[in-house]
Amino acid sequence: SPLTHFDQSGQAHMVDVGAKQDTHRIAIAVGTIRMQAATLALISAGNTKKGDVLGIARIAAIMATKRTSDLIPLCHPLALTRVKVDFSIDTSQSSISCTVQAETVGKTGVEMEALTAVQVGLLTIYDMCKAADRGMVMTDVRVLEKHGGKSGDWSAA
Amino acid sequence: SPLTHFDQSGQAHMVDVGAKQDTHRIAIAVGTIRMQAATLALISAGNTKKGDVLGIARIAAIMATKRTSDLIPLCHPLALTRVKVDFSIDTSQSSISCTVQAETVGKTGVEMEALTAVQVGLLTIYDMCKAADRGMVMTDVRVLEKHGGKSGDWSAA
Amino acid sequence: SPLTHFDQSGQAHMVDVGAKQDTHRIAIAVGTIRMQAATLALISAGNTKKGDVLGIARIAAIMATKRTSDLIPLCHPLALTRVKVDFSIDTSQSSISCTVQAETVGKTGVEMEALTAVQVGLLTIYDMCKAADRGMVMTDVRVLEKHGGKSGDWSAA
Amino acid sequence: SPLTHFDQSGQAHMVDVGAKQDTHRIAIAVGTIRMQAATLALISAGNTKKGDVLGIARIAAIMATKRTSDLIPLCHPLALTRVKVDFSIDTSQSSISCTVQAETVGKTGVEMEALTAVQVGLLTIYDMCKAADRGMVMTDVRVLEKHGGKSGDWSAA
Amino acid sequence: SPLTHFDQSGQAHMVDVGAKQDTHRIAIAVGTIRMQAATLALISAGNTKKGDVLGIARIAAIMATKRTSDLIPLCHPLALTRVKVDFSIDTSQSSISCTVQAETVGKTGVEMEALTAVQVGLLTIYDMCKAADRGMVMTDVRVLEKHGGKSGDWSAA
Amino acid sequence: SPLTHFDQSGQAHMVDVGAKQDTHRIAIAVGTIRMQAATLALISAGNTKKGDVLGIARIAAIMATKRTSDLIPLCHPLALTRVKVDFSIDTSQSSISCTVQAETVGKTGVEMEALTAVQVGLLTIYDMCKAADRGMVMTDVRVLEKHGGKSGDWSAA
Repeated sequence: SPLTHFDQSGQAHMVDVGAKQDTHRIAIAVGTIRMQAATLALISAGNTKKGDVLGIARIAAIMATKRTSDLIPLCHPLALTRVKVDFSIDTSQSSISCTVQAETVGKTGVEMEALTAVQVGLLTIYDMCKAADRGMVMTDVRVLEKHGGKSGDWSAA
Repeated sequence: SPLTHFDQSGQAHMVDVGAKQDTHRIAIAVGTIRMQAATLALISAGNTKKGDVLGIARIAAIMATKRTSDLIPLCHPLALTRVKVDFSIDTSQSSISCTVQAETVGKTGVEMEALTAVQVGLLTIYDMCKAADRGMVMTDVRVLEKHGGKSGDWSAA
Repeated sequence: SPLTHFDQSGQAHMVDVGAKQDTHRIAIAVGTIRMQAATLALISAGNTKKGDVLGIARIAAIMATKRTSDLIPLCHPLALTRVKVDFSIDTSQSSISCTVQAETVGKTGVEMEALTAVQVGLLTIYDMCKAADRGMVMTDVRVLEKHGGKSGDWSAA
Repeated sequence: SPLTHFDQSGQAHMVDVGAKQDTHRIAIAVGTIRMQAATLALISAGNTKKGDVLGIARIAAIMATKRTSDLIPLCHPLALTRVKVDFSIDTSQSSISCTVQAETVGKTGVEMEALTAVQVGLLTIYDMCKAADRGMVMTDVRVLEKHGGKSGDWSAA
Repeated sequence: SPLTHFDQSGQAHMVDVGAKQDTHRIAIAVGTIRMQAATLALISAGNTKKGDVLGIARIAAIMATKRTSDLIPLCHPLALTRVKVDFSIDTSQSSISCTVQAETVGKTGVEMEALTAVQVGLLTIYDMCKAADRGMVMTDVRVLEKHGGKSGDWSAA
Repeated sequence: SPLTHFDQSGQAHMVDVGAKQDTHRIAIAVGTIRMQAATLALISAGNTKKGDVLGIARIAAIMATKRTSDLIPLCHPLALTRVKVDFSIDTSQSSISCTVQAETVGKTGVEMEALTAVQVGLLTIYDMCKAADRGMVMTDVRVLEKHGGKSGDWSAA
């Protein structure tokens, strides 16, 4: 089966990566949270003054990369060598996008670490603003690019 | 400010809930992962036979509710009394939706626990199918309903 | 089905305990590790002088009670009010038994916390002595008594 | 002393493995849970239809390998490269055995990861069936084989 | 013995608090990190502009309160109802002080949560500035006040 | 800026260490807890007989090294190869000092692991003795020596 997380009898396993090379792995993931214009204005104000929602979401996102293999059952544990988290505010769409670049030198890719960081970054924005705007929506979370390993480079269409 | 997670000087804090009543709290959150039709077929096959992607994603989602306050910086720790996770397969949209209902009897709401479970459930599906379909997209993650506490009932529009 | 951890459609869930009473819950669990007589002699010596294997295993067992709901997927999180760990050395059987009493005031029982503590206590003994005796066997781990809750008192036959 | 986890003054330490070679390490551990015949029948039914106790116990066992160094005080943290968990049902003995194979490429063995996975796998079966059968017993948990490292191959007698 | 964390035979236990009242508990702890004047200037600049060392240390301190019972072996787990972290910069002493107020409604005090938050807050400052100033010293970490519980109010001399 | 944990726009990141060499890294940190003479006498008695405060604090310190990157937001995860914890009792100063030596073979230093272990070791002493002496003070926590990596050897003045 193309689903490599199951063995021939259909049982889940942590895939054998012992024979894989240690290569430099990079993954970039992105996601967006949409909100009311008034909520976006509150966050934008705080970002430059006080009440720094995005600064806190950035820390939560970085820390989440270190918990990924605790959360995702069949994910291999690995030691990240770099994590970078960027937020961009889109006033016209009344949304904020979170882009995470994760890297390691190891036997497995870091897509899950990058995606988990995006999700936790967005969740932290939701948490901090939910008293003002419970209807925020997190959306379009996906991998943008991936480099390294046997499968080499990949980019979203 | 409507952003209750900051005090008057703009500094983040874990909000004082000591004087709040213990009430029965319920939150329902939902989210969707879109994929290729072939990927959905693989998951659908496994669900009834072997290679049970959704069974594993359900466990990951349930366990994630117990890690929520570890992941979200200003989230209060709480003891959940119920977690229920449902997946529904939409062949026409080539997607799977994950709905989580979380409950507690306590001083704070459980929206973050429900949302975190949805996100981790979707991430686990991504992880198990990424070798076959790296372009899957997680989307429309939001709170549907909320009950209990001082603010009472709330439903998404 | 008598398997309460599954709903009517056979899907796993964290069982709803929201309507249960907070009662005083007690569970006592026990388990044994068998080893070579020489290994037992090493541990016995350390217990009273230096190289305190059982002191360290006791701490590991107590700390494990606080990680139980992180390890056991459908286990409710709860706040323990008491944990007591005893080891008894049986020279005639060349074994050590670990007995754990766990207590809470809450809506769910604490058997899993007591059993997990026994297992981690025995595993810690294994870890510290494995260089000397890799063939140690952990055995007869079970619940001895349970008190509190709707099902009331229970004792092993 | 043969107890390498203590230094010359009898104090516990995390043993120095800095000069050890990175080699391919394998450990296989096994353990059994005995239960009433009726309980085993419930699990067997679920395994092929719905109420999949063993599928959930397998996930718990795999995830536990990633928590081992958090649970066992002097255990070195390491990055697993493979985890495989098998259950076998023995109707004649009214029991289920859990066998775990753990692997890494590193400086320390993975016996503790394999043993911890067996224990958590058995505990998860206990948790899911305890409402039907509180008297289940976990037993005969031990290492079967070990490969790699300076001490080389080892098998249980 | 006045050391309540040991039973009559001298063995460590998690003290029985099952019979204690749920009362409103408050603890305030404080600690200081001393550094070179140039390092303090870097932090002070960042605090109001970019490179927000203290904002990140505040988040780390708040999150640490939720990990306290995982770190301190005999500490009871509890659900905090409020955490407040303040930093004050003392240019004349070339130091920064961290004050943490932790609160719960429960059976045990929250001194350990407040102290752990101070320590992790100071450690995070050290981590972020160590490339510039490895000789920073963390000092005078102590409880200032404690309220609630059977022992009532207490203040440091 | 000399604060390497921020990028050029002042945003926090986990610094890129992917191109760094794996070298043997050592860090030694120290800290002290001051107490009443009567409290020190209680601990000293327990150390050789029963009520082993320092044995438990040593285990807590060792375990804390494995949680460091979970606690300190921008700290890289790493696999320790050695941890050694020593306590020395100073009757004349009525204090106990904790010295921790941490080692790894990797791309980043281990100062944070050594410092975190010292802090948790001291916190554990505080926890176990606080019923007798709430006014204990933790002080003079700092790095003494550091070896390995591009910056090479460093010692406190």
